[in-house]
This record gives sequence, C-alpha cells and structure tokens, in this order.
Amino acid sequence: MIEAVLPQASLLKKIIEAIKELVDEANFDFSETGIRLQAMDKSHIALSFLHLRNDGFSEYRCDRSQTLGINLNSFSKVLKCAANDDQVQIKATDKAEKLAISFESTAKDRVSEFSLKLMDIDIDSVDVPEMDYQATVTMNSQDFARTIRDMMTLGDAITIDATKQGVRFSTDGDDGSGSILLKHGKRIDEDSKAPTTVEITEPVSHSLALKYLANFAKAAPLSDTVTINLIEDAPVMFEFKISDMGHIRFYLAPQIEDDNE
Amino acid sequence: MIEAVLPQASLLKKIIEAIKELVDEANFDFSETGIRLQAMDKSHIALSFLHLRNDGFSEYRCDRSQTLGINLNSFSKVLKCAANDDQVQIKATDKAEKLAISFESTAKDRVSEFSLKLMDIDIDSVDVPEMDYQATVTMNSQDFARTIRDMMTLGDAITIDATKQGVRFSTDGDDGSGSILLKHGKRIDEDSKAPTTVEITEPVSHSLALKYLANFAKAAPLSDTVTINLIEDAPVMFEFKISDMGHIRFYLAPQIEDDNE
Amino acid sequence: MIEAVLPQASLLKKIIEAIKELVDEANFDFSETGIRLQAMDKSHIALSFLHLRNDGFSEYRCDRSQTLGINLNSFSKVLKCAANDDQVQIKATDKAEKLAISFESTAKDRVSEFSLKLMDIDIDSVDVPEMDYQATVTMNSQDFARTIRDMMTLGDAITIDATKQGVRFSTDGDDGSGSILLKHGKRIDEDSKAPTTVEITEPVSHSLALKYLANFAKAAPLSDTVTINLIEDAPVMFEFKISDMGHIRFYLAPQIEDDNE
Repeated sequence: MIEAVLPQASLLKKIIEAIKELVDEANFDFSETGIRLQAMDKSHIALSFLHLRNDGFSEYRCDRSQTLGINLNSFSKVLKCAANDDQVQIKATDKAEKLAISFESTAKDRVSEFSLKLMDIDIDSVDVPEMDYQATVTMNSQDFARTIRDMMTLGDAITIDATKQGVRFSTDGDDGSGSILLKHGKRIDEDSKAPTTVEITEPVSHSLALKYLANFAKAAPLSDTVTINLIEDAPVMFEFKISDMGHIRFYLAPQIEDDNE
Repeated sequence: MIEAVLPQASLLKKIIEAIKELVDEANFDFSETGIRLQAMDKSHIALSFLHLRNDGFSEYRCDRSQTLGINLNSFSKVLKCAANDDQVQIKATDKAEKLAISFESTAKDRVSEFSLKLMDIDIDSVDVPEMDYQATVTMNSQDFARTIRDMMTLGDAITIDATKQGVRFSTDGDDGSGSILLKHGKRIDEDSKAPTTVEITEPVSHSLALKYLANFAKAAPLSDTVTINLIEDAPVMFEFKISDMGHIRFYLAPQIEDDNE
Repeated sequence: MIEAVLPQASLLKKIIEAIKELVDEANFDFSETGIRLQAMDKSHIALSFLHLRNDGFSEYRCDRSQTLGINLNSFSKVLKCAANDDQVQIKATDKAEKLAISFESTAKDRVSEFSLKLMDIDIDSVDVPEMDYQATVTMNSQDFARTIRDMMTLGDAITIDATKQGVRFSTDGDDGSGSILLKHGKRIDEDSKAPTTVEITEPVSHSLALKYLANFAKAAPLSDTVTINLIEDAPVMFEFKISDMGHIRFYLAPQIEDDNE
C-alpha cells in the first residue's frame, strides 16, 4: 500500500513536466524513505534522476518497496486537471494495476479522482558514482534557461567554460558565433536574484548538445538556481533542488570535439 | 426597417463567438419584441437558441418582422474591427440585401462602417417544448469550461450525474479514467464566486459527446453561471443568461450508453 | 574602424524587426554623420529608408565611410540574445569580414559577444526626391497598426482618403466591405494619446496593397505616432520617428484602380 500527499499540485506538475521531455515512460521506485526515479532518454545519451524524500510530503506511507511504471504523458494529462493550489494524493495498493490520483480544492468544494493504468517497464538501472567535481557553477535557473534558448537560435552545440572569472557559454553556427559570460559573484543587494558563483579546483571546458540542455531547462520552474558540475572525462551534471524534499539531476556526456571542419 | 444599438460591442462579439462554433450560417429573426435565432449544428445533433429582448438594447426598432440570413464567420470578422467599448449599431432596410454595421468609439473620434452581404438560408425550425426538468445544476461558467477542457484531455464522452450531493462529471479514455465532483452549495463568503447548486426531484445521469460541450463552453464569457438541466429520455439543456436581456440555450441529446466494451 | 553604442538594445531590436519584414539582406552605410540604409522589398514595390544620426548614439565613431552588408534574419537572431535594457555595441574594423556585436547587462554581470558574417550585397540605390505633399496625416501608430490588421480581415487593398474632416481607410472583400473614419483633431486631455490630425492643401485618395502596410506597421513600436504623406501620382510615404535620432520611412506606389469588375 502506497499513499503520498502533497499540499500543492503545482509541485508535482513541474516535476513531471521536467522529466517527460526526456522520456515517455518511467519507473517510480517507492520505498519507506521516499521516491526515486531513473530515466535514460530515448537516444541513451542523457540520464535523469529524481529523488523525493518522504519527509517532504504532508503524508507519506509505503508499506513495502514497490515499483510503479507510469506513462508520463498520461500522468501529465491527468495533472493538468488539477488547479495549482489543489492538494494532490497518489495511492496504489500492493500489486496494483492502476494508480489512483485525487485532487481536492482548497475550499474543499471540488474533488477529482483519476485512475492511471500502470505498466511493466523494462529498464536497466545505471550506477552513477558521486564525484569530486573540478568546477561547480551555481546560477539563476531562469538565466540558464534563457542562455540555452539564446544559444539555440545560433547553433547546435554549446561549450561551457568554467574559470575563476565566471562561466562562459559559447556556440558557433551558420549565422555567426557568440558567447555569453556570466561573471562570478556579484550580488547587488539582498532582494536581487542569486549571483552566479563558480567554485573551482581546475578550469574545465566541455562541449554539449544543446537539444538535451533545452530539455533540462524545463526543470527551471522547480528551483531558483541550478548547479552545473563539471569534471574532465565524465558527464556534466545539472542539479535542480526541489524545495526541501529532494532534487532532480541530469547527466550528459560531453561531445568529442571535432577539429576538422 | 431594422435598427438596434448596443452600448458595448463586446457583448455582441461574445454572442457571435458562442454561436459560430456550432454553425456557419444562421437566420436572425427580428420582431417588435426582439431577436431570436435557432441553429442546428452541421451534424444535426446539437441545437442552439438565442433570445435577445428589445428592452436590452439602448435603441431598438423593428417596423415589421424580418429574417436576416447571416454568415457568422463574416460577421465575426467585422466585429473584430470593433473595440470592446465601441457602441455598435446594426441596421437593415426592408428587403435589404446587406446588413449595415457601425461602430463608434467612446471618444467619438473613430467611426467605422461595415456592410455584410445577407443570404437566404433554408432552415427547418424545431419546436422544443419547455420541460419540468428533474435536475437543475447551477455552476460557475468558467469552472464548467475548465471541467470540459480537463475531461477532453482524457476522453471523448462525459457522464453528468446530478444528485443531492452535487454534480459529478466523469470520463474514460485510453490513458485512464477520471471524475470531478462539485459539491452542492458551499458559498464561502459574499465576494467568492457563486457556489454549485443542484435542485433535484430525482437523480439523473446522462452521457454526452464532449466535442459539443466544448463548443457550448465558448459561451462562458457571456455569463458568470451556467445552468445544466437534465431529465430522463430527453436532451440536456445548457443555459447561459445574457445580462438582463435574454439567454443562449444549447440542447444536446444524450448518447445511448453501450455496455459492451 | 566603426564603433557605435546604444544604451538600450530594445531600440536596435525594434529597428531590425521593422526592416526585416521587407528585406532579407541590407547594406548599412556608415559615415561620420551616422547610419543610413535603403532597401527595396523583394517584389520591388516597397522601399524603406532608415536614418540614424551619430548624435543619437551614446558613443559613435566612424573613421571612414564604409558599407556593411548584413543578413537581417541573422542580425535579428543575435539581437534576441540581448535583454531589452542591455547596452549594445557594434564594431567593425576597416575591410572587416565580420561585425562584432556585444551586450552588457545593466548590472555588468553578464557580457555577451557575437560575431556576424558580413556579405557583399549588390543593390542599386534609388533617389527619392523630397516632396511637398498635398496631405499629411498624423495618427497614433498603434491605431494605425490596428486599422491595417482590421482591414486585412476583410480585403487585400486599402483606400486612404485624406480630407479636412479626417482620414478614412476603406476596403472591400468577399465577406463584405468596411471603412474606418478617424476624425481630425480631437484631443481630449493632456494624458490622452495624440489625436489624429490632417494637414491638407488638396484632398487625396490612394489605394494600396494591404500586405505591404502590414509590414510597415511592424515599425509601430518605434514611435507613438506615424505620419502618412500623400500626393497625386507619387508613392505614399509613411514615416516613423526614432526618438531624437532619426526615422524610418516607407514608400509604396499606389495601385492603379481597376474600375471594371
């Protein structure tokens, strides 16, 4: 028996919107301590991890560990039926064939109940070791989304250079080339948005396919900031915190740069 | 000679937008007491009635009863040329071949004049008897529009169940099934929107094609509330009041439920 | 060596948006006194002129006159990467093959640098003599854009009649016909938008293709007002002032009205 309640449907909406760009179907692993999800995109290039701790829910119960295979487009359609402020409850019996999702309006005058077919999804799980990254960039998540969108108007790939001075995003396309430098650490006042910061042991530079980053940027509504973690010869990791209850992480392998044009 | 003036073009815009989803061309019957329109949708399943009383116009004159056949898309295009606050006047001579439509801005610095070709439309009129409905649901019209939109993401048909507890809308589709219950009669305070109320002599349940309801929902901007009137073995009637001057009513025959799946 | 700085990227964005509807590539002529551009649309019917005086820039330097051929779609893409309040600098060396464009945020925490390929564009320049127009209509530029959009829902051509009473725009289409009269000179109060005014020596009437006017209307964000200048047997001229630094002018030859239908 699984039962989990969130006070605001908007959070669950944002989480599903962030993942469904990368993958159509995913396994949600419920355990006593919370929910985990791991998903590889269709082209097996980008990997996403979701972790939601039990203490972040207003109610959480999971009698025994259970994996629920869910079609994310169907889940997203059902969540569109919730107002942002609705309380949302998800529920499944042991060996359930369906997931029960219900919404209740704050005035309690509207109660919606939905039922989603569960599915068996065959996925190999991947172990991603924790790493000591050489550079960690923290920046405003909307600026991140905006930078990705800007770079996409010009090119297909983006190079991320992290140095002590800041982080530079650059691209090259048929119309021209461009770079955007966000300087390290200038917070103007308390009310302003978080500054860009770069913690670094060694400068790192990686080139990445923009189309995946555009998908990652869909997670921007979940968090004010995103951290970009870079290290030589390993995938770049993008992390969006989910309030106090967890995070969503995306991993993307750098492109091998081809110097012959 | 026909002449009718409304102080705000926005009202006429909303009326035409509500009807033009169902039918391309319609006969407007002008008489001394006001304007009536009856229109059957192209598939002959949904019926719409419009009634605007003469006393709702700031000026109204109709020397003799006259029927004007109007292409609603053309009418809608002309109305788009009016600002919402413009005064609108429609005018036709006896045996007119054209309808004259004029707009005047509140500052009177802009006067627009349009002329629409009238057409002969051959329509059989249908008599719909007034009925003692078994259940009358009154609800916020935006909530109605939202509910229809939500249900359409999942299914093609909607079941409306009216009971003393409230009204339940439910649907069933490939992605899953769902229901939304709006409870009877909980007004929170004076400023809040009108509560859902159900007046009932006997519980009624009908299944309806969602695509027609989506068209009816286009009338939501006309009125804060919609009433849904249900009775066994007869079409469901949806009524939107038009301020103090009339109403628009939609009739839709229930689907015969097919229990073999 | 060319170097020009504008304190707000939004102005340059609006200028390029206004021109790029008419022409894909254009020559920007830089001289000591400022920038000029002349462009003929692809069908050789509409002509546009841009003039930006050197004193309108916060910094301006042009060592020797130089013509830079620029693809306007590429330029527009690059400008989309600037925030409206960013300072923008454009820079080119003598015989440059690339134009350097850079943006700096007001907080100076973000610096973007782009490079656009320059091109050789073979354009015959046209001399348009200054004329003593018979009628000059000044009107709110948003009202102009709105009128053009309204007329386009009905017809392909627009007739502009300037008289002492005001300016009348009219069109004729399959759905019906229409005209919009903007009366001369009624300013209601200081805060209200500029009134329509008509200065006239002789009434003039011209018929013009709406699709070009729709392109000209893209310049409306540049200026609160537009002036329409008319004279018998010559193109109509539409002028949008660009704050205190110049203007953009569009010329369009009237259609020969065909009285045989």
